[in-house]
Amino acid sequence: MQKEILDKIMKPKSIAVVGASTKEHTIGSDIMKRLQEYKFTGKIYPVNPKGGIIEGLQAYTSVNEIPGEVDLAIIVVNAKFVLQTIDQCHEKGIKGLCIITAGFKETGAEGAELEKQLAQKVKDYGMRCVGPNCLGVVNTLPSVSMDGCFAESLPERGHIGFVSQSGALGGGILNILKDLNLGFAQFISIGNQADVNAETALEYWEDDEDVQQMLLYMESIQNPANFRKLATRISKKKPILALKAGRSAAGASAASSHTGSLAGADKAANALLAQSGVIREYSLKNLFSTAKVFANCPIPKGNRVAIITNSGGPGIMATDAVCEYGMEMAKISDETKATLRSFLPSAASVKNPIDMIASAPIEHYKQTLQTVIADENVDMIMVIYLPFLGLKDIDVAKAVMEIKEQYPQKPVIGVFMTKSEFFTALSDMNVNMPFFMYAEEAAEGFMRLDQQRKWINRPEGKIPAYSVDRAKAESIMKASLMEGRAQLTTLESIDLLNAYGIRACKYGLAKNEAEVVELGNSIGYPVVMKMTSKTTSHKTDVGGVRVNIQSEEQLRAEYKDLIQKLTEKGLIDGLEGVIIQEMVKGNREMVCGIATDPQYGPMMMFGLGGVFIETMKDVTFRIAPLTDVDADEMIKSVKAYGLLKGARGTTPAKMEQIQETLLRLSQLVHDYPFIDELDINPLLISEKTGEGIAVDGRIKVRLEEAKKALNVECAACV
Amino acid sequence: MQKEILDKIMKPKSIAVVGASTKEHTIGSDIMKRLQEYKFTGKIYPVNPKGGIIEGLQAYTSVNEIPGEVDLAIIVVNAKFVLQTIDQCHEKGIKGLCIITAGFKETGAEGAELEKQLAQKVKDYGMRCVGPNCLGVVNTLPSVSMDGCFAESLPERGHIGFVSQSGALGGGILNILKDLNLGFAQFISIGNQADVNAETALEYWEDDEDVQQMLLYMESIQNPANFRKLATRISKKKPILALKAGRSAAGASAASSHTGSLAGADKAANALLAQSGVIREYSLKNLFSTAKVFANCPIPKGNRVAIITNSGGPGIMATDAVCEYGMEMAKISDETKATLRSFLPSAASVKNPIDMIASAPIEHYKQTLQTVIADENVDMIMVIYLPFLGLKDIDVAKAVMEIKEQYPQKPVIGVFMTKSEFFTALSDMNVNMPFFMYAEEAAEGFMRLDQQRKWINRPEGKIPAYSVDRAKAESIMKASLMEGRAQLTTLESIDLLNAYGIRACKYGLAKNEAEVVELGNSIGYPVVMKMTSKTTSHKTDVGGVRVNIQSEEQLRAEYKDLIQKLTEKGLIDGLEGVIIQEMVKGNREMVCGIATDPQYGPMMMFGLGGVFIETMKDVTFRIAPLTDVDADEMIKSVKAYGLLKGARGTTPAKMEQIQETLLRLSQLVHDYPFIDELDINPLLISEKTGEGIAVDGRIKVRLEEAKKALNVECAACV
Repeated sequence: MQKEILDKIMKPKSIAVVGASTKEHTIGSDIMKRLQEYKFTGKIYPVNPKGGIIEGLQAYTSVNEIPGEVDLAIIVVNAKFVLQTIDQCHEKGIKGLCIITAGFKETGAEGAELEKQLAQKVKDYGMRCVGPNCLGVVNTLPSVSMDGCFAESLPERGHIGFVSQSGALGGGILNILKDLNLGFAQFISIGNQADVNAETALEYWEDDEDVQQMLLYMESIQNPANFRKLATRISKKKPILALKAGRSAAGASAASSHTGSLAGADKAANALLAQSGVIREYSLKNLFSTAKVFANCPIPKGNRVAIITNSGGPGIMATDAVCEYGMEMAKISDETKATLRSFLPSAASVKNPIDMIASAPIEHYKQTLQTVIADENVDMIMVIYLPFLGLKDIDVAKAVMEIKEQYPQKPVIGVFMTKSEFFTALSDMNVNMPFFMYAEEAAEGFMRLDQQRKWINRPEGKIPAYSVDRAKAESIMKASLMEGRAQLTTLESIDLLNAYGIRACKYGLAKNEAEVVELGNSIGYPVVMKMTSKTTSHKTDVGGVRVNIQSEEQLRAEYKDLIQKLTEKGLIDGLEGVIIQEMVKGNREMVCGIATDPQYGPMMMFGLGGVFIETMKDVTFRIAPLTDVDADEMIKSVKAYGLLKGARGTTPAKMEQIQETLLRLSQLVHDYPFIDELDINPLLISEKTGEGIAVDGRIKVRLEEAKKALNVECAACV
Repeated sequence: MQKEILDKIMKPKSIAVVGASTKEHTIGSDIMKRLQEYKFTGKIYPVNPKGGIIEGLQAYTSVNEIPGEVDLAIIVVNAKFVLQTIDQCHEKGIKGLCIITAGFKETGAEGAELEKQLAQKVKDYGMRCVGPNCLGVVNTLPSVSMDGCFAESLPERGHIGFVSQSGALGGGILNILKDLNLGFAQFISIGNQADVNAETALEYWEDDEDVQQMLLYMESIQNPANFRKLATRISKKKPILALKAGRSAAGASAASSHTGSLAGADKAANALLAQSGVIREYSLKNLFSTAKVFANCPIPKGNRVAIITNSGGPGIMATDAVCEYGMEMAKISDETKATLRSFLPSAASVKNPIDMIASAPIEHYKQTLQTVIADENVDMIMVIYLPFLGLKDIDVAKAVMEIKEQYPQKPVIGVFMTKSEFFTALSDMNVNMPFFMYAEEAAEGFMRLDQQRKWINRPEGKIPAYSVDRAKAESIMKASLMEGRAQLTTLESIDLLNAYGIRACKYGLAKNEAEVVELGNSIGYPVVMKMTSKTTSHKTDVGGVRVNIQSEEQLRAEYKDLIQKLTEKGLIDGLEGVIIQEMVKGNREMVCGIATDPQYGPMMMFGLGGVFIETMKDVTFRIAPLTDVDADEMIKSVKAYGLLKGARGTTPAKMEQIQETLLRLSQLVHDYPFIDELDINPLLISEKTGEGIAVDGRIKVRLEEAKKALNVECAACV
């Protein structure tokens, strides 16, 4: 990670602004202004070929003329001068760059080439570089005080680390965060991410005490595997919140023209973020609301919420919201109820939501919160205030915060349905809990706290290594490759699954009655018998498919009957034999498989299959490789989980066996990364045993990659 | 509706405040203050037994002493004096009451009795009454200027009619609406709704030009059928927005203890609101956002949205939001693109979202909007602004509004990611379009406009009257009632469905081979044969169920075989006969039926059935009776509609026949309102014909009600 060089960017002692300017409303002028207005604690060296005085400081005609050492060069020169500027920085011994200049990858092929050269220089010179095409960097730590950014507003001090792939957005956010009573520790506008990206920032901030949560705005994830590794680890220490744009096809297409990132399949991004413990938000509003909650709340011990209100209606709406966000309404203890009854009026309700009624004075807010927060059945508390008869919002807020101060371990969120002046007043105060206008915002905050709690408590999980028959698997794939086929046949697919220990429908080919019976007996009844013939393709029309054969006796009879019928019809000559196949009975058809996303790599899929697959869209995805915990979560996260558990008198499915199926598939695609698609549809849940049985399989490889990996050369392979 | 009496409440020329008080921070004092502060245009008469001067006005010791006529009495005396006050009001000839006093139904049985007497008096005296247990009434029309309410803030002038079942909430809302740049025309805090309720308000406001949209906060709906009738009609003229609280079980229980309303099944409320064209919101925040959109936008011609932005990231997020809210991204015409290219810089994107890039001056905002708004492929426009290099938010807003002014027919929403000062500044201006901070808010607004557009264009629909065999239906039910059974047998249920022309599985009982064959031939093959015996209950174990019988020949053989086997086993004596049943093949199991909600009455249900019913919860509800449009919408609103259309090679279902099934069921429950439950599960979609066929049916009546309605008396009925 080269922390010491990143420190030169984020905690510099001296900054050269290359391209500093005296012209108003230019980036070269604004950056100089912001650095000085925000009182950067180190030295600032403006660099401009014309020299002169810029924003009251002596400008140098080149970085080499700067007398002292320079940690960070903020570069705002025209794109065509950027490469030579980097060379000059190298000569001067500068290791940290922040290239604000646009005109690279985002503009097309020529720009992309220029950016490639830029990235190579940065690497060769052992530098680290933020940008190009970015808004700059900020560090609000008082010992640094760097606003190296050309946004309109100065940043607010706080403990959020923010990474934005959109410069403009970063600027917009700087403008509005004060209103939200939120501040940054550090802000990195990563722009085109020629070097520093979101992953660099996560790692850099991992042990930085000044950064207590990380917010990401992303349009693409550069290295999904590395992101997963880092985020999975770091999110256990600090919440990571991400807004990933380009979810819709239209949005992805806009993102693609905008930053040159690939139109990533959103389901892959979603899977990656979920597996990595990253809290995904779908709007800026929610991103900030959640950040506000994490900034002012501890992680709770559970999900039981108590609501304290001075008005019924808002209490009901809050209850609805708490339930709809998946929290539980706390069951207030009898002791707590008794205490509440001792001082609240008789018209009050001491059942959760606790309605102190409109007449509640500040003293009731204090006593009620004090009583409820001490109840062991309560994990989180929402305090609702509506203005009544002379009670002042800010006084109530202060009283509530006073009690909250004594219980740092329980999250309390205020819902104050009052004027915006109240929130403005709060933003100039030291608050120890978040306040919102609406109950839904508080309920969503609780949900996020609980999500983080569950993530922290979630076992890490293991990627098991099953013993499998790789030799057999490879010989099956080689046979297909030798014939130049990317798509395996159904039987090859089933065989391959079998080689990996995946429970697939048993079957075999028999050429005479003895073989038929032997197969039937070894598979176990009931079985299905299907003729296979070189000349007769419509098996069903000639009675060539016999289902639900219950016994050896019946099997013999059916076989004899088939042979007789075919002979009678003159069709016996083409007959190669009959396939005897296990007959799996069940009406729960699941699907599982592998899809490959060009950006995120192999992705596991599980859900409701059969005719329901497209319509009900009850499927879930995870990036491979899967841990056992991932697999378990996949199974539990689909609605059809209720079916698996045994809805309406069906046999409960063997969850561990299904989980193992997913894990073995994950191992298969890990061993053979050239597998492009794999579908088991249906994975039929046997009504008899509850097993998930692969009844049909479809496997497709990427031909060239596969041939290379398996050393297959052949005449047939064109 | 008695408009002239309601006018006395909402547009009074004189008000008596009964219970007016000099004591600070009491309702009797606050009401007096608000009426005067808000400069009520009529006369105010304080009434207090002690007389004296209250808020500068001569107080009367009783209403009868008031010299002039009194239109409205606002009553704030203690609950025990309310009845006699009403008597006095009657003597004085007062017709309009607003009873703020609490202590009625919300406090228990005694209060409920008091309220009953109150309601009776109001009725007997020909009065209309708002309350009791409410916050009061407001009319901001300058010729009235009545703030008869004890909220902290004075109301803002606007064109919203607001009805709140929660007084406190109404007060809270009065406090915050100014921040939202929204104002009321009229506000009615209906409290316990002893007389005036939401329905009264809807009807009263139907033709009031000052009320342009209606907002409802409800915890219960008093008369669902009447609400439906009124709302369906009025919502075509003006948007009706509703926040119905008590959605969750916990919330409903809180609502119930709070106002004494029944814990209404939320799905019934949801169905009712959807059928009535009421826009249901799930949070106050969204209720207000939507109101802001309707206050400043015309109804669009379609759902195609264009996005104009000066920054890529927010453009992408906006695109995601527009798509996720179900709008379409407009396809900008080539002509428009060419015009845009003529003045925008080359780095700009003229594809929707239109990214003018960060350098865009005000002139580009104007030209771009002017160009795009004239494009016939565009129905609605989102204009996004992020602050850059000296461009002022308020100047951009003014420029955009200037262009918007020329195109009153197309909705334009501004997304200004800027400081809250901007929004404060707007609230003192005359705006002609809504502005929000976040793109998601704008996208949701577009969605609501489009929802209203669709509702206005939605055909009214008809409740068809099918000719059915009522005599047969009644004889079936009577037979069951005679035996004291509330639950009909499966065969009775199927017969009843048949009597109502609902396509049910054909079947019949046969007692000998000739009958068997006759039945088989009349039903059509394939059929199922099931033995029915008084002594053998486990039919399957003795081979008593034969499926998939393809022909008369096979049917004869199977029947003979059955008789032979039963004879061999000594089981022939108990045999009553065999049921020959149509064999319906298909793997799409739907469900439809009727459930009765204690508050909302009979409710129709349709969706995915079989083992999926509880797990997938893909069912929809509508209040009966259904119109053809309702039935059509029901079918289209479930995810399984994709299955019906013929997913994965299945036969497309006969939608009209399924629709007719729902309509006939609706007619059935309308004819026999004592039907309590009716389930057709599965309504199997025949793979052969695409028909929905009732394969199993279950009907249950409310016994006493049914006996009365059908005049059944019998010994067996206990």
